[in-house]
Amino acid sequence: MKGAVLYGPGDVRVEERPDPTIIEPTDAILRLSATCVCGSDLWPYRGIEPVTRPTPMGHEYCGIVEEVGSAVRTVRPGQFVVGSFWASDNTCAICQAGYQSRCVDARPMGAEGAQAPVLRVPLADGTLVATPDLPSADLIPSVLAASDVLGTGWFAADAAAAGPGKTVAVVGDGAVGLLGVLSARQMGAERIIMMSRHAARQQLALEFGATDVVTERGDEGVTRIKDMTDGLGAHSVIEAVGTQESMMQAIRATRPGGHVGFVGVTHGVVFPGLELFFAEVHLHGGPAPVRRYLPELIDLIWTGKINPGKVFDLTLPLEQAGEGYRAMDERRAIKTLLTT
Amino acid sequence: MKGAVLYGPGDVRVEERPDPTIIEPTDAILRLSATCVCGSDLWPYRGIEPVTRPTPMGHEYCGIVEEVGSAVRTVRPGQFVVGSFWASDNTCAICQAGYQSRCVDARPMGAEGAQAPVLRVPLADGTLVATPDLPSADLIPSVLAASDVLGTGWFAADAAAAGPGKTVAVVGDGAVGLLGVLSARQMGAERIIMMSRHAARQQLALEFGATDVVTERGDEGVTRIKDMTDGLGAHSVIEAVGTQESMMQAIRATRPGGHVGFVGVTHGVVFPGLELFFAEVHLHGGPAPVRRYLPELIDLIWTGKINPGKVFDLTLPLEQAGEGYRAMDERRAIKTLLTT
Repeated sequence: MKGAVLYGPGDVRVEERPDPTIIEPTDAILRLSATCVCGSDLWPYRGIEPVTRPTPMGHEYCGIVEEVGSAVRTVRPGQFVVGSFWASDNTCAICQAGYQSRCVDARPMGAEGAQAPVLRVPLADGTLVATPDLPSADLIPSVLAASDVLGTGWFAADAAAAGPGKTVAVVGDGAVGLLGVLSARQMGAERIIMMSRHAARQQLALEFGATDVVTERGDEGVTRIKDMTDGLGAHSVIEAVGTQESMMQAIRATRPGGHVGFVGVTHGVVFPGLELFFAEVHLHGGPAPVRRYLPELIDLIWTGKINPGKVFDLTLPLEQAGEGYRAMDERRAIKTLLTT
Repeated sequence: MKGAVLYGPGDVRVEERPDPTIIEPTDAILRLSATCVCGSDLWPYRGIEPVTRPTPMGHEYCGIVEEVGSAVRTVRPGQFVVGSFWASDNTCAICQAGYQSRCVDARPMGAEGAQAPVLRVPLADGTLVATPDLPSADLIPSVLAASDVLGTGWFAADAAAAGPGKTVAVVGDGAVGLLGVLSARQMGAERIIMMSRHAARQQLALEFGATDVVTERGDEGVTRIKDMTDGLGAHSVIEAVGTQESMMQAIRATRPGGHVGFVGVTHGVVFPGLELFFAEVHLHGGPAPVRRYLPELIDLIWTGKINPGKVFDLTLPLEQAGEGYRAMDERRAIKTLLTT
């Protein structure tokens, strides 16, 4: 099969890769209906994370089960399924507590290379959730979004304790931040402030339920959020970037006793202890335990309550993955869907 | 009056200070029944925090109201009261959300110098809570403890989400850590592991409800905690020291999805972002909003359900405050009560 492989900064090639096969009896093989490029794929693409050898890329996926290993019980060939970007057994104490991304046997789906037409999914019973039926074509982008970007935005909003009566601020206008807006809206937040200076993203944030847009950044952005909240700061802040500046912006924009949900993979970030002590916020984040939320997210998508697939503003055939990366890197696209 | 004043590292003097008087109409003047030395007083005593001029010390207090300002409504002369080490209005949005230590008008009681026989308390209505009656002499140490050290241990246990079914580990065997044990026990924790290598403190921890003692520290301590928890780590960890080593020990001893409550005033601590991201713990801490808990704590003390005053293993007259500091600095005493 053909799959996307990163050779070095800016160098994504779609080339022949071995067809995935069942390796462990708990595996499933999926024929993917769609896959996509993640904001986190841009870190190695930009050379900020080193690329030491040609690396198959991609960890977001949905599609039809083609084959299952002998130990798989809960999914079967022909079903349409979606799974998290971390495979998990969903039975260990950590999974049962809702942290499947930190399952004692967690497997990063990135290691499988999901930017391809066929994918091996380890721990299929614990990882995959079947949709009620085969989705119509217009639902596929939304179901695909559940695999990571929606689940991650949802976790961020949950970690930030978004809910009724709350003012939520969102730092980061990428697809995760935008779906953090959608999630906070679903959770009933009263006011949702998107921090963005990009017209198309502002527009989508408003469609997803943002009530306000703030264009200032850093300490100026913090001042604006405080001005809008009686000088106190937001109750809930979603951090969806992962830089020192965005993290400090998020913490400083949060009122004492408030919650910061951080899901941008941190790069070179350090949290200054004394500032965090006196900030007195709740801090929670990390790789989103998407599996926890999948049944609820699928239901919301299936019943038309949310349309997270709108974050895909560029659709390309897999063969043009390189252009998909470039468009996101240059912020010409929010998120690129790749058809297989 | 005579009060304790810190002149520099190791140099506490009890000397004449002006008698406190009503300055603002919201003030109260208390005749203190007892005061004490805090672990946080040891930072400047040890020269780790600079002392730039003679500084009145002390921020823990309980006693009888002697006089109130013209605007004070809820406490009156003759009542026995206790308050937090932060004065707060208890009416602003932050107070109402339970974060009185970060009240929009918060005043540090340390600025008043509570190691003295008489104390001015600003924002008396918001800050002070009256006990049901005058306490008997044997209750006074416990009521005094509620002012900070118990309230701080309680907040740490609450921030660490201690509760039924939980395994709680406590880093720091000072008075706050020990009362973190007591608090976790009250909250119904199943297993409470005190990390200590000091016999008297281990003993008190066991009296307060610890089920296990671990003597190893740092990464060895983390390994021991994991060995005791199916390799996962504790659900809840209380950090009651404030150093880099203790903070990392706390974070690493916590399972993914677990909670770290940190109340040791951080000194030179930085949280490494990527480790915190993948640790996926909840992190919450800071100066304890003791006022939130005071009514409940007074009730538990009054009804004999808890006896936090046991942390005072040295009682001295105020005139000997210097020896009280020395004994704590040299770890000969857990906590020194000063009679006035």
